[in-house]
Amino acid sequence: MSPREIYASRKRLIERELRRTVPRGSPRSLYPPIHYSLTAGGKRIRPVLVLLAAEAVGGNVNDALPASVAVELLHSFSLVHDDIMDNSNLRRGRPTVHTKWDPNVAILAGDALIGIAYRSLLKSPVERLPEIGRTFTEAVVEVCEGQAFDMEFERMDHVPIPRYVMMIAKKTGALIAASSRLGTLCGGGSPEEIASLTRFGEALGRAFQVQDDLLDITSSERELGKPVGADLIEGKKTFLLLTALRRAKGEDRTFLRTVVNRGGARRRDIPRVRRMYERLGVVREARRAVDDAIREARACLDGLRDSPAKGALFYLADMLGRRVS
Amino acid sequence: MSPREIYASRKRLIERELRRTVPRGSPRSLYPPIHYSLTAGGKRIRPVLVLLAAEAVGGNVNDALPASVAVELLHSFSLVHDDIMDNSNLRRGRPTVHTKWDPNVAILAGDALIGIAYRSLLKSPVERLPEIGRTFTEAVVEVCEGQAFDMEFERMDHVPIPRYVMMIAKKTGALIAASSRLGTLCGGGSPEEIASLTRFGEALGRAFQVQDDLLDITSSERELGKPVGADLIEGKKTFLLLTALRRAKGEDRTFLRTVVNRGGARRRDIPRVRRMYERLGVVREARRAVDDAIREARACLDGLRDSPAKGALFYLADMLGRRVS
Repeated sequence: MSPREIYASRKRLIERELRRTVPRGSPRSLYPPIHYSLTAGGKRIRPVLVLLAAEAVGGNVNDALPASVAVELLHSFSLVHDDIMDNSNLRRGRPTVHTKWDPNVAILAGDALIGIAYRSLLKSPVERLPEIGRTFTEAVVEVCEGQAFDMEFERMDHVPIPRYVMMIAKKTGALIAASSRLGTLCGGGSPEEIASLTRFGEALGRAFQVQDDLLDITSSERELGKPVGADLIEGKKTFLLLTALRRAKGEDRTFLRTVVNRGGARRRDIPRVRRMYERLGVVREARRAVDDAIREARACLDGLRDSPAKGALFYLADMLGRRVS
Repeated sequence: MSPREIYASRKRLIERELRRTVPRGSPRSLYPPIHYSLTAGGKRIRPVLVLLAAEAVGGNVNDALPASVAVELLHSFSLVHDDIMDNSNLRRGRPTVHTKWDPNVAILAGDALIGIAYRSLLKSPVERLPEIGRTFTEAVVEVCEGQAFDMEFERMDHVPIPRYVMMIAKKTGALIAASSRLGTLCGGGSPEEIASLTRFGEALGRAFQVQDDLLDITSSERELGKPVGADLIEGKKTFLLLTALRRAKGEDRTFLRTVVNRGGARRRDIPRVRRMYERLGVVREARRAVDDAIREARACLDGLRDSPAKGALFYLADMLGRRVS
């Protein structure tokens, strides 16, 4: 099988297991919204990463499947709750849970997703369960801390880039790093393998977030499934905005400071910001940051012996760097 | 030490450990609200129950302390999120987290509380960790299911009493039953002890909820720390309301149906409802239900050998049946 086929087959396994794991039926205000939140499509990067990491260290897919599904459920929890907090009405072109139902339903669906995630996680191989539980739990806490910092930064005029890097390491990086680590743990990896696959995940997480920031402004509404510039309008301090604030002079600077002071851009400002980002080389710098992180991630796999799963991990890393949605 | 002193000393242990367990510092929008939610006072019934159950089966307090703290953190999560969903502005006489900060802060504080709860839980004795993890996790899911049913019932005209019993078993009973079971597990209890202390917790949970329903209408604002009749105003289907709906005739019945159809009582209706509950014997029936459940709980302890911890468990059960807030 080609790396792409391996990826696709693991993804199918995850889709099937996800459907099995979430209860059907009542309460009707709880489980149907959860199923809805899980069927928005998407590449299932995190759970596939769990499975491939397990296989790349010689482990069995079935030993890693419970943790894999747990990671996707946790990811879904964070999307459902973040969408409430960020006031997002669309995700992948569909109404978000709190828009289709109401905020209370979305709060509770997110809460239950955490419980169901742990229910799955606890089916992992028992001899490594304490370490698996800790890795997953630290990711839960970091995801919350990251979202808290993200919201705090929205209200701040000035955010130094290292603070931004710390925030995204928690908000986005932690769960991707945990996925890679969890897979290695479930697959019975050595301490060295655990260390290098954790670093692999951390670098992937960085690439992922900067790419996300980039797509917010360079992609199209059709590809994003939500309006272009949503982060900017929401007042998010993205990698691109922070870089632009550092580089801009004169009229550009005044304009960007106005956007920041106003708490976010207006919809009609988006094309101007986009042109400015191009002109100031901010888009180029973001692309380079993504490429650097992907390269760093790939280097972490050097020590692994060659295998189809390792090839699929390279494929996954490159896919992250090239994704358009 | 008297049972009351044992209770108080275990409670102090929990208070200290809770303060240690929750991080201080940043994010400032996350950890201070969590500390606030944990310092509202309260009897700490659930975590004390964890410790006493462990001791009553011959176990060590320190082995049960991580699970004990985890249970209280989970309880706090459910209060913080329920207060958002139920639109409650006061708890124990203080503004709720979403009122003092905002709903986003409260959503995230609740989410992080679950993570911190698991962080503590995972420090439990490793040989029973899988079972401890499962018990705790099933309680997480049941608490969410219970809250979902509770909100669904608010919008229903007619709720059969068995459905109400099912709902409170999840919303309130599950965590109290889990507390008792977790303590027994951490204390190294036998399968028989686990079974009887789980039933002890279930009966306590039932007593607790009916007592809660009773206090909503028979207590005072000073004792409750929130307005009398808040459940009724919110449209909650309490044990008392459902019993009254079954018993009321004529004018009483018409009035109660109006309250239900309107989606809740008006503040000025509360004294009338209270008098009706007294007159129809609904208050007496609720008191009897509480007493029956407490008696049932006490009987579950018959098989345990006598110990100071067993005495304190009796004390805890009686306290639940007599509490005024």
